[in-house]
Amino acid sequence: MSTIKPTPAPTLRRLPKYLEYLHEAKRKGIASISCTTIANDLKLDSVQIRKDIGITGIVGKPKTGYNVDELIHSIEKHLNWDDMSSAILVGAGNLGKAFLGYENFKKYGLNIVVAFDKDRNKIDGNIFNVPILHIDKMVDLTYRMKIHIGIITAPADEAQEIAELMILSGIRAIWNFAPRHLDVPDNIYVENAELSSDISHIKRRLKEITDKEKKYSESN
Amino acid sequence: MSTIKPTPAPTLRRLPKYLEYLHEAKRKGIASISCTTIANDLKLDSVQIRKDIGITGIVGKPKTGYNVDELIHSIEKHLNWDDMSSAILVGAGNLGKAFLGYENFKKYGLNIVVAFDKDRNKIDGNIFNVPILHIDKMVDLTYRMKIHIGIITAPADEAQEIAELMILSGIRAIWNFAPRHLDVPDNIYVENAELSSDISHIKRRLKEITDKEKKYSESN
Repeated sequence: MSTIKPTPAPTLRRLPKYLEYLHEAKRKGIASISCTTIANDLKLDSVQIRKDIGITGIVGKPKTGYNVDELIHSIEKHLNWDDMSSAILVGAGNLGKAFLGYENFKKYGLNIVVAFDKDRNKIDGNIFNVPILHIDKMVDLTYRMKIHIGIITAPADEAQEIAELMILSGIRAIWNFAPRHLDVPDNIYVENAELSSDISHIKRRLKEITDKEKKYSESN
Repeated sequence: MSTIKPTPAPTLRRLPKYLEYLHEAKRKGIASISCTTIANDLKLDSVQIRKDIGITGIVGKPKTGYNVDELIHSIEKHLNWDDMSSAILVGAGNLGKAFLGYENFKKYGLNIVVAFDKDRNKIDGNIFNVPILHIDKMVDLTYRMKIHIGIITAPADEAQEIAELMILSGIRAIWNFAPRHLDVPDNIYVENAELSSDISHIKRRLKEITDKEKKYSESN
């Protein structure tokens, strides 16, 4: 029995960028493309690109490179984007509501089919055609719908409890937008969205850039 | 002249999690705390936590550990969160509009003061008290306001052009939500939000988990 080799995380981060680029190339009428061209346009390393693309199973032709359509199909299949996955979302605040109307998620094969909130004032009707229900209904409904992906856009102090309810509901992968470490069993995958970490990065790096310039101008 | 040592990226990713935890500890009335306690509660390594915290400049006391208030202050100061930074946002679609009303950004010291869009139908008035203006006004206004952080929530094929306009506007750090590699000079910091990569990760890992279980159940 062969083991399933997980795709390296950095490859999974780069593949969507190639896809975006390839769709644009396709719109421009480009039929075949080489790793060198992709590398030049995206300012990335062509050996790396060849390796990443190779993981999806496609083989390029010498001289002409890859057929653009086939390459798009191969990457999308590997990323499982051709299969639309259903997801639930918990926390219908501003961010949660925006996600219900964010078309890019569908483009990447993620379809939020129902949202939940504990606040009865928020559960009135649909937003962008997605029903908002009370969280009491989550476990039973999610389990019956056989949904395996859950998105948490609730406040940090509710995140752990929601994660536990999600696991009871049959959720296997959690996309966590709450700035909180989730404690879950090993067989549950958690992807942390890290918005707060992104801001830390930006603010800290900006300070480092400006401090450096200040020192430089003072020493001159 | 001493050089400014950049804080390692993994530390910058962890510090906001400690902060969230410490604010909660403070709310519970806890006055001092040890790395071992933080490590146990967050299921992280205490040596790592001590090292991360040490980078912010605070020194703990033997036996009692850190004063919670001082520790919060030290981390927030290092992350530059105590300084509210102004930012502009370009792309007032669903995601962009949600960010204007997303209170957590302010909590992390990021204040979006004005948003821009190229669509004149979207620039009518304020959203969550943030004015939406036409992108033609961006360069002049941002430069005069001396704003250094720009957020891109526009479609992928507009991202590069917006980034270039931002740089002309005096923006030094870009938070990019468009699934597109931005080509910018070395002195500009880009933080990619990677929502599409997060989805790739989730879908791929979910497939790996379920394939593994399928193989396991078939072989038994």
